[in-house]
Amino acid sequence: MKLSRKGELPLLEKIRKRLSRKTRAVLTGIGDDAAVLRPGRRGKLLASTDMMLEGVHFDLGLVTPRQLGFKLLSVNVSDIYAMGGRPAFALLGIAVPGDTDEKFIEKFLDGVEEACNRYKVSVVGGDVSSSKKGMAFSATLIGYVEKPLKRSGARAGHGIYVTGTLGESACGLELLKRIAHHVEFETPVEMPLKWRFMEPLLRRHLMPDARRPGAWSKRASALIDVSDGLLIDLTRLCAESNAGARIYAGRIPLSKELIAVSMALGRDPLGFALSGGEDYELLFTVPGESRIRGATRVGEITASGMSIVHEDGTERAFGPEGYQHFK
Amino acid sequence: MKLSRKGELPLLEKIRKRLSRKTRAVLTGIGDDAAVLRPGRRGKLLASTDMMLEGVHFDLGLVTPRQLGFKLLSVNVSDIYAMGGRPAFALLGIAVPGDTDEKFIEKFLDGVEEACNRYKVSVVGGDVSSSKKGMAFSATLIGYVEKPLKRSGARAGHGIYVTGTLGESACGLELLKRIAHHVEFETPVEMPLKWRFMEPLLRRHLMPDARRPGAWSKRASALIDVSDGLLIDLTRLCAESNAGARIYAGRIPLSKELIAVSMALGRDPLGFALSGGEDYELLFTVPGESRIRGATRVGEITASGMSIVHEDGTERAFGPEGYQHFK
Repeated sequence: MKLSRKGELPLLEKIRKRLSRKTRAVLTGIGDDAAVLRPGRRGKLLASTDMMLEGVHFDLGLVTPRQLGFKLLSVNVSDIYAMGGRPAFALLGIAVPGDTDEKFIEKFLDGVEEACNRYKVSVVGGDVSSSKKGMAFSATLIGYVEKPLKRSGARAGHGIYVTGTLGESACGLELLKRIAHHVEFETPVEMPLKWRFMEPLLRRHLMPDARRPGAWSKRASALIDVSDGLLIDLTRLCAESNAGARIYAGRIPLSKELIAVSMALGRDPLGFALSGGEDYELLFTVPGESRIRGATRVGEITASGMSIVHEDGTERAFGPEGYQHFK
Repeated sequence: MKLSRKGELPLLEKIRKRLSRKTRAVLTGIGDDAAVLRPGRRGKLLASTDMMLEGVHFDLGLVTPRQLGFKLLSVNVSDIYAMGGRPAFALLGIAVPGDTDEKFIEKFLDGVEEACNRYKVSVVGGDVSSSKKGMAFSATLIGYVEKPLKRSGARAGHGIYVTGTLGESACGLELLKRIAHHVEFETPVEMPLKWRFMEPLLRRHLMPDARRPGAWSKRASALIDVSDGLLIDLTRLCAESNAGARIYAGRIPLSKELIAVSMALGRDPLGFALSGGEDYELLFTVPGESRIRGATRVGEITASGMSIVHEDGTERAFGPEGYQHFK
């Protein structure tokens, strides 16, 4: 049934029933003018917000509503993790056209719920509205932190590390577009690719997990999540730290799936890893030399200038080559 | 200059410079993955979010960017006041098409800044994005409260009060549309109205002030702000309180400006006052009989049923006849 036949009140009631959770910290959840929350006994508060817009952040032909709901929470939780914090509460903004089917919202809420369970987050409020054209979602995450890990603590000589592997989300999106194109024009898919190579890349793009900081966070001097691409996010970290960086192309962690799919698409896997956004891995710096479980050392902080050393030994300067809105 | 020529980074930098304010409570503001905030020593946290969408909540032909920015903050601050709280921090979401002029954003930020000064709110974070079509804004307000005033505390016999006067915002919008129509079709304006009657109504719609609860808040049993209309918001308060209400048409506070303009428009002022939204007055209940400075007693809480007593003495039931999205 279309939302326009029922009005917003039944939708608000549904969200309240499904997502409102009384915990010790949620004194008043969805259903009043504002949520009432218990502040942590020790520690500080974290707050972050992100929007997702149709046609800009997602294309309804390439993503399911459940994936959308999950991703909306994940990208915001990632910002809380990127401060070394613990997510606790979420406020949602949902604006969709009146002819949106109720089932779409059901599945969107499935995804939100799945993410809330995974990250132990309670939805405590939000706003539901009709939109004239296109969907717009927003989420605000509130969390706690004892000792915030900012972008600004990196100093010359500190090692630069990144968790997991990079470039998969951007490559997954490219793959998804290529598949959609094949389906639309009924051309045979000519990519010699096995599903087990494609699946992790598609999943990374459609339902990314936020990375919780590991034991290394106690020693980290600066931290940011890779949301817009390694080069742009490293540039941001260095700008806040008043420092530079040198990274090594040969050390950027690439998965075998990324390499296989990039080759099949005729694209450079390193390009995805350096400039592709939405991986939501953590990029951090640590004083001294050390091996860190679950993370790869990709370079070191310098006094100034941003550069990358290629495998043939040549060193080239780089700017913030990631995704920028309005460009 | 169009935003698309500069990218999002200069815009983010501008917002940071203009709106970021270091206070004792803002440990890290705009510019990191999340804001770091000091929790209140005593008291609880409040959090609330609202969206404003082009074509749904505003029409760029009828509102200036400065008014938009001011109103975005005001409507969210109103939710914090409606819990008996004190606003402290704001997170903004700004999504506009790439061909939006930089000056538009400048003026939008003027309005945000004006509201931040008025309500003593610090912008601590946000998200800036391009949109494909139409503008979308969101704000999340975080505040403090010692003793939250919820919607659920009203009991049979408590008096129902409302601050200020009602219906002005809706009547102001109607007036604005009528003027725009006259201008568009170059028909002479035939409304025999003086500017001093029109101005307060237009202002109420375009740049509404959030009402801070008065000394009465210590005695209030339930509180909500009138954002969608008296009848719908009173219905919400009663639903949460498991109670009913009887109000008296003759006691609804109407300004002389509302009466004059409604008559010129050929509309019923009481209709605006009962079902018009966006007045952002406070609607509250208080045990016992008493006069309250700055507020009018409009009826009383009953055991069940919602009804209005007209001036001829007839009593009629009413439902939630306010603005509902998707309907």
